[in-house]
Amino acid sequence: MSKFWSPFVKSLVPYVPGEQPKLAKLVKLNTNENPYGPSPKALAAMQGELNDNLRLYPDPNGDLLKQAVAQYYGVQTAQVFLGNGSDEVLAHIFHGLFPDISYSFYPVYCGLYGIAFDAVPLDEHFQIRASDYAKPNGGIIFPNPNAPTGCVMALDAVEQILKASPDSVVVVDEAYIDFGGETAISLVDRYPNLLVTQTLSKSRSLAGLRVGLAVGHPDLIEALERIKNSFNSYPLDRLAIVGAAAAFEDREHFEKTCRLVIDSRERVVAQLQAKGFEVLPSAANFIFARHPQHDAAALAAKVREQGVIVRHFKQERIAQFLRISIGTPEQNQALIDALGEL
Amino acid sequence: MSKFWSPFVKSLVPYVPGEQPKLAKLVKLNTNENPYGPSPKALAAMQGELNDNLRLYPDPNGDLLKQAVAQYYGVQTAQVFLGNGSDEVLAHIFHGLFPDISYSFYPVYCGLYGIAFDAVPLDEHFQIRASDYAKPNGGIIFPNPNAPTGCVMALDAVEQILKASPDSVVVVDEAYIDFGGETAISLVDRYPNLLVTQTLSKSRSLAGLRVGLAVGHPDLIEALERIKNSFNSYPLDRLAIVGAAAAFEDREHFEKTCRLVIDSRERVVAQLQAKGFEVLPSAANFIFARHPQHDAAALAAKVREQGVIVRHFKQERIAQFLRISIGTPEQNQALIDALGEL
Repeated sequence: MSKFWSPFVKSLVPYVPGEQPKLAKLVKLNTNENPYGPSPKALAAMQGELNDNLRLYPDPNGDLLKQAVAQYYGVQTAQVFLGNGSDEVLAHIFHGLFPDISYSFYPVYCGLYGIAFDAVPLDEHFQIRASDYAKPNGGIIFPNPNAPTGCVMALDAVEQILKASPDSVVVVDEAYIDFGGETAISLVDRYPNLLVTQTLSKSRSLAGLRVGLAVGHPDLIEALERIKNSFNSYPLDRLAIVGAAAAFEDREHFEKTCRLVIDSRERVVAQLQAKGFEVLPSAANFIFARHPQHDAAALAAKVREQGVIVRHFKQERIAQFLRISIGTPEQNQALIDALGEL
Repeated sequence: MSKFWSPFVKSLVPYVPGEQPKLAKLVKLNTNENPYGPSPKALAAMQGELNDNLRLYPDPNGDLLKQAVAQYYGVQTAQVFLGNGSDEVLAHIFHGLFPDISYSFYPVYCGLYGIAFDAVPLDEHFQIRASDYAKPNGGIIFPNPNAPTGCVMALDAVEQILKASPDSVVVVDEAYIDFGGETAISLVDRYPNLLVTQTLSKSRSLAGLRVGLAVGHPDLIEALERIKNSFNSYPLDRLAIVGAAAAFEDREHFEKTCRLVIDSRERVVAQLQAKGFEVLPSAANFIFARHPQHDAAALAAKVREQGVIVRHFKQERIAQFLRISIGTPEQNQALIDALGEL
């Protein structure tokens, strides 16, 4: 603290990212990274860009990547916004389009931009209930699949929320959509109030590259471009633009690795259930599970001792849950072994 | 424009970056990029990082790069802040530390965060006069060397500004310092109100990688970290962290290429003066020049027709100047040839 800090800085409660330990030997099942590497074509594209051209600024619009995303989803490039991770995309959305705001970063953004919000509780089964959102609001955001529960909403429930609030921007944060959900991007042409955000950190295994995007009506995208161009003209570096574009083009690698993660998830769910865990239905690359007889913090500490890190949140309603990322078959087995007999 | 835009978004006047033409044949002397490539060691470090580890999030703190910067400047890592280009670093400074604000992005940031500002005019020789800043203020920022003039202030003049406003944060934006100025980082231990920002886009030829930094008292750095961690945990990707760190470690390449740019600048200045141009004294990798008999916009159009792009600003006091980046000897000659007889 210092006399130079504004009251606003003093009031900030920053987001705490999942631990990134520097020990290579730990089995990291705490930050929902992809166990499989990115598309070899993405690596090759970045390889090709690793040359003296790094002396030049990147394309501030990232047109190459906008075109790849537009082609992949069958939308126009004017419906695509890009950012330095979906965290940056979300920050600009909060800043520009929200005057009600699950993912623990949402209240942080509200704090950053002085936005009043109302966190809508999940139902008794930890599910989002669409009817709970049909009330006066200045904007709605929810992840689908939800984090940290992993539970997915069907597209007709998303549509119900869109119809109930035609005068508000509704943001669907689809960071985990490719592991078992259906994207709402198919709805953007019918709902001018819909913004869908995605990331390349999960299903495209490029967490280290920092690329996220939003798809929606060109008017909403233009609002985001105005904010972005008032903040940082070049949020994506040259390597990120070419690598992300190639990752979108490589459907085969994408589909194969998503399938491997989904298959592993179903195996881990069965193994945990066999140990007595209650596991919420997951459409993500992580699962949210609790054991009726064992304290979650104690279980997290137990597996940590054996070199496996999982995420534990201390909030009241979920304090007995563990959020476990799906790793390679070997990493998942390390978790099951570390849990041992319960 | 749309009903979903907040009045704030409507009011934004975004920064317009220098044109990034997609034609490879143009001689780009309009965006102050470095004509020489980045350190081969930086490219090799990124090469080594181009692997499956891109599936993992980067270190949110970028410790490897903080250590390289701290070692280079002889400061502590707690005195170093990193961002996605110095544009992002500056945005966070405006957001968190400023309640008076040359670089055309400054008024844009004030608009973004609702900050009142007073642009202090340069003196009649287009120089910053330190005594003009000795008045009540909530924060001061200026580039040194200044942009787009290229003129540098001596360190004792910077110190005079720091002493006159001990209760305000004073930001020295040193994007171009390595081409002929003396960094104010040597003053950070004596002035807790001093923040120095730098970029790797100019002297380290990594504009395509998006890395900037700030150095100052740990309390100021902590304020910036709070904002950053409320905005985007991972502004630097894995390639950027290792590439930037290696660039700071490669002093030989850095010193050699800075020297080449400075030598070219002195040659171009002499050639322009021989054609009748008035050239402001430059300590940057660009020059700011006007011709008493020729309109600047007409000159910019003339050289553009021959494939050379330079930057022309339409603001009243500088409308007769051209900002010309220093390129390779061949590019500089292309400019001189394109100007022809005047």
